[in-house]
Amino acid sequence: MSQVSAYGAVRADAPLQPVKIERRVLGADDVEIGITHCGICHSDLHFARGEWGEQPAPAVPGHEIVGLVRAVGANVTKHKVGDRVGVGCMVDSCRQCEACHEGEEQFCAGQTGTYMSVEKQSGLPTYGGYSKSITVTQDFVLRIPDGLSSERAPPLLCAGITTYSPLRHWNVQAGQKVGVVGLGGLGHMAVKLAKAMDAHVVVFTTSQSKVADAKALGADEVVLSKDAAQMKPHANSFHLIINSVSAAHDLAQFTKLLRRNGTLCLLGAPPVTESHQWPAVFTMLMGRRSVAGSPIGGIRETQEMLDFCAAKGVAPEIEVIAPEGINGAYERLVKGDVRYRFVIDMATL
Amino acid sequence: MSQVSAYGAVRADAPLQPVKIERRVLGADDVEIGITHCGICHSDLHFARGEWGEQPAPAVPGHEIVGLVRAVGANVTKHKVGDRVGVGCMVDSCRQCEACHEGEEQFCAGQTGTYMSVEKQSGLPTYGGYSKSITVTQDFVLRIPDGLSSERAPPLLCAGITTYSPLRHWNVQAGQKVGVVGLGGLGHMAVKLAKAMDAHVVVFTTSQSKVADAKALGADEVVLSKDAAQMKPHANSFHLIINSVSAAHDLAQFTKLLRRNGTLCLLGAPPVTESHQWPAVFTMLMGRRSVAGSPIGGIRETQEMLDFCAAKGVAPEIEVIAPEGINGAYERLVKGDVRYRFVIDMATL
Repeated sequence: MSQVSAYGAVRADAPLQPVKIERRVLGADDVEIGITHCGICHSDLHFARGEWGEQPAPAVPGHEIVGLVRAVGANVTKHKVGDRVGVGCMVDSCRQCEACHEGEEQFCAGQTGTYMSVEKQSGLPTYGGYSKSITVTQDFVLRIPDGLSSERAPPLLCAGITTYSPLRHWNVQAGQKVGVVGLGGLGHMAVKLAKAMDAHVVVFTTSQSKVADAKALGADEVVLSKDAAQMKPHANSFHLIINSVSAAHDLAQFTKLLRRNGTLCLLGAPPVTESHQWPAVFTMLMGRRSVAGSPIGGIRETQEMLDFCAAKGVAPEIEVIAPEGINGAYERLVKGDVRYRFVIDMATL
Repeated sequence: MSQVSAYGAVRADAPLQPVKIERRVLGADDVEIGITHCGICHSDLHFARGEWGEQPAPAVPGHEIVGLVRAVGANVTKHKVGDRVGVGCMVDSCRQCEACHEGEEQFCAGQTGTYMSVEKQSGLPTYGGYSKSITVTQDFVLRIPDGLSSERAPPLLCAGITTYSPLRHWNVQAGQKVGVVGLGGLGHMAVKLAKAMDAHVVVFTTSQSKVADAKALGADEVVLSKDAAQMKPHANSFHLIINSVSAAHDLAQFTKLLRRNGTLCLLGAPPVTESHQWPAVFTMLMGRRSVAGSPIGGIRETQEMLDFCAAKGVAPEIEVIAPEGINGAYERLVKGDVRYRFVIDMATL
């Protein structure tokens, strides 16, 4: 094992601080990655603050990891020293279930999370990407294509794949109307990806202040969802609406906007104490409409998404910070004050 | 126009009684059908009792119609005098919208209902199949294949297509697990149709008294949905669950039983004053599960379903009554006392 510098929370009520963590000895199938950049996902904050249950000490978040390969094990064929690579929300899975066999490891009940999990290889808690290095089995390491910078690639590994996967699963085609509810880290990626698929993209927001931003990101139209007069002309017209808002809200108003066979896809869940306002069943019957949920994507699809983004010139809008800025970034994240993703530059860790 | 004997409600609070209605003059594209049998759907009762809004006087229900062609207009090529034919929930549609062009007339906003609508051809209210004859444009008249009796075919035209359509839309394959919630007119057809598609069929019921019946209908397994111990082994295993219960109930318990990419399909809607208990969004995310609704099917699919039933020997369980028995049948329908569909023999009308 080796000691590695990281940034983590020693208690749920403590700010993040410099810590040391143990990384496992490089195994025959492993890739050791020197981390150069890591994105900040809202999940990181829930984890570090103990909002998702008991944490390891220290709790080191981060599942939007980009870096350079420093060493590879004897069996590694997919990556070599010096390659630019990435790691997303999973570092392993059971490899035996039907989901794994079909390349949908995101649905494997035995998957190993990049944090908040335990490594099969070592029995150590998994520590995330707010650190100088990580050791990951080669099959869960992604190639970062040349067209993507190391600063802008990290958010693709969570926010990017989480929005790309439903756009592909529900088979979005050129010219179809795709809605995006909420314009945060996920929403802004949904806009860029759907536009890159040549969809007609409509952003739904409750903030007048986001209208100009949404258009700048490429949205064809922006609708203030609280304004019934703006909503009405969109009735029965959407193939897919990607809903990135996890706070409890009215789903009925969006379900009505779906065309025949359309899907409202939820990407986030409200706290268990709250509940969305669900559509009338009649609205669902009269158009064979669906309300669905979607998590991240599988490894194969994540690589496909990275290659798609490089080919199409799609990258997130980011704000680069130093590790010392993490706690401040969390405060701004809680207030929704980020356009649209923080990325930590690990150079000074 | 011609006067036709029928059975209808002259007021929302009146029992059904013999009435006379006007049928339009046979047009060039029309088929005049001498009705021999008509099924009773629960919708008939809602309509006749004014529970779905203002009724015509008289309100003549019935949208599971089977009979013999008595006359055809000059342009009619699809049917000839003496053919055994059927009419379901629609008697026309706009023919111009995308749904119509794609053969999904059930989603046409300009469709003409078999009752509770107005004929484009005549401006008359549409009167349903509790009558001696009906005149319908040829494209909305179905062929009844030889393998189906006139007594047992009617329920296929609503209960049959309503369950067949989602089984096909969600692409049920041999060996997949299909759940059926509720064992009434719709549920019992879902069991028979899913079995005919070689699915593994599990019926969910709240009544111990229906267990033997469900097995007799072909269910591979029957689960008392209030018994958590019986529900638990089915977690994460269903490709599709057809939910035929319209009363408000707990959808979360069924959503958990869906496998990856599975769908809980609702066929009925609770009264607007009631609301289902919806699943936690997290349950939907972690398996890319969907909750959807589905109405009837289109004309092409309805014909396909009739041909499928004839080929596979699928037919509803029915109880044949005379027109004088309609009011008594309604009382039993409200109590759920029917196995599984009433069919009116029009011989004595």
